[in-house]
Amino acid sequence: MNKLLAVGTVAFDAIETPFGKTDKILGGSGTYVALAASQFGVETGVVSVVGADFPASYLEMMHAKGINTDGIEIDKNGKTFFWSGKYHNDMNSRDSLITELNVLETFTPVVPDNFKDADILMLGNLHPLTQASVIDQMAKKPKLIVLDTMNFWMDIALEDLHTVLKRVDVITINDEEARQLTGEYSLVNAAKKIHTMGPKYVVIKKGEHGALLFNEGKMFFAPALPLAEVFDPTGAGDTFAGGFCGYLAKTEDISFENMKNAVIYGSNLASFCVEKFGTERMESLTADEVKKRLYGFKALTQFQI
Amino acid sequence: MNKLLAVGTVAFDAIETPFGKTDKILGGSGTYVALAASQFGVETGVVSVVGADFPASYLEMMHAKGINTDGIEIDKNGKTFFWSGKYHNDMNSRDSLITELNVLETFTPVVPDNFKDADILMLGNLHPLTQASVIDQMAKKPKLIVLDTMNFWMDIALEDLHTVLKRVDVITINDEEARQLTGEYSLVNAAKKIHTMGPKYVVIKKGEHGALLFNEGKMFFAPALPLAEVFDPTGAGDTFAGGFCGYLAKTEDISFENMKNAVIYGSNLASFCVEKFGTERMESLTADEVKKRLYGFKALTQFQI
Repeated sequence: MNKLLAVGTVAFDAIETPFGKTDKILGGSGTYVALAASQFGVETGVVSVVGADFPASYLEMMHAKGINTDGIEIDKNGKTFFWSGKYHNDMNSRDSLITELNVLETFTPVVPDNFKDADILMLGNLHPLTQASVIDQMAKKPKLIVLDTMNFWMDIALEDLHTVLKRVDVITINDEEARQLTGEYSLVNAAKKIHTMGPKYVVIKKGEHGALLFNEGKMFFAPALPLAEVFDPTGAGDTFAGGFCGYLAKTEDISFENMKNAVIYGSNLASFCVEKFGTERMESLTADEVKKRLYGFKALTQFQI
Repeated sequence: MNKLLAVGTVAFDAIETPFGKTDKILGGSGTYVALAASQFGVETGVVSVVGADFPASYLEMMHAKGINTDGIEIDKNGKTFFWSGKYHNDMNSRDSLITELNVLETFTPVVPDNFKDADILMLGNLHPLTQASVIDQMAKKPKLIVLDTMNFWMDIALEDLHTVLKRVDVITINDEEARQLTGEYSLVNAAKKIHTMGPKYVVIKKGEHGALLFNEGKMFFAPALPLAEVFDPTGAGDTFAGGFCGYLAKTEDISFENMKNAVIYGSNLASFCVEKFGTERMESLTADEVKKRLYGFKALTQFQI
């Protein structure tokens, strides 16, 4: 079993959807990645920062899931990163209402000694320089470095993003962001251009329309499971990434063939994430439920010609 | 081998895309359905109407493909249906610039005697009353009736549409139209509602995002092949429907399991259709090319868990 290190935010979210709204609840890319990865029983550590206001119960929940939180710094002088957003009726677009960086503003990630030899490194959506500083701290080159990013960093730190991209194996990015990064409308052409920027593997997330995996000419597609109700899309992309990395860590196989399974597992877990507000569904999710829905994915996509 | 009858428009299109523009070229739902079905070597007839201005060479091209055009009435006193449209940069949306119904305005379809026993009846996008009148003319109930429609008929002839829907087995419809017809945003819920309107099988076309097949609780998904360039999307949906019907006619098997293959074949053919303007690519398409790309579809979607 491989060791997984996830860097990302651990945060408060307040979410409004057509189905209801929440007060401040647990959120953050690092949280979702780790919760998804915990489904595979792999040794998972999180590097992040929270403020004095962060409830110990959240950390305890993570411990109970086998997640190592030694890398989550508690900044006694600050408040936890807070994001508030409202989803539109189509659930595909949202408005950010509040973004309070708080302790994230001065965050300098420190990788705990026992995770400096992690086999898989998942760099969640953070400033590209922060992502790079984590790579710098690794005692040995990880077998696989996966990076997630967003349009915000393309707008304000494009050069730094290009620098860190040269050092990663896999990028996960959504379709609009892939278009922005490359200037190519066709996702096939966008993936080709991203290959030349560094990542040998490109995962383009299309939300309810699934995800594409590219590897220098090869291509694989995982649909999103069509659901009767999407309750809250928050964290679906990070859950996808966590499922992807967790599966690869568990199987210790980073071949393209096995990455196909990894994107299916990622899609499978993401389909649960959206069923309830925030992390609620991922916290209660059982291995049996995951396995059962995996059959649904096979039925949805497999054919005999 | 089953006999296939397709009812639809045979028309002139003038198309503008970011890649260029055409004068009046061959188009129409009946044309695309028949060209796609001709890939399967099944006996295919088209019921439609054209005007005196319709070139004999187009009919000859269809004959060369083995398409029976006895049901294409030539109205010497009228002009052929003409549509002109311009696609936006994303190729997913378009503006209709000109729609001249011409001979279509008074079109009363007449099914040729030798196709009144067709096994599969494809009712292309026409007024629901026109679609119903074709069903009325069949000497025996076809094994499978497939209906395509669009938002236009929901706006002006919803009651007639509901009446004909009760008589069909399969509906092909795009995602926005499925939402309009049912008032349900979720496509899973939309398909459920459409089942109660008549069709046991619901195919929801999502353009570049693939197609979903529903059959009372069962669900299958065929992606669209991601392409480096989509040159002209005109006719892709009808090509999909023609491939779907043609495959079912060839294999004489209308089970849900075989319909999965049929939607894959439909997606496969549609991926060729968009590579050139109008019908050009479908006219030159060879069985070898189809077969080769089918392997691409398998590689794109099949996984081993």
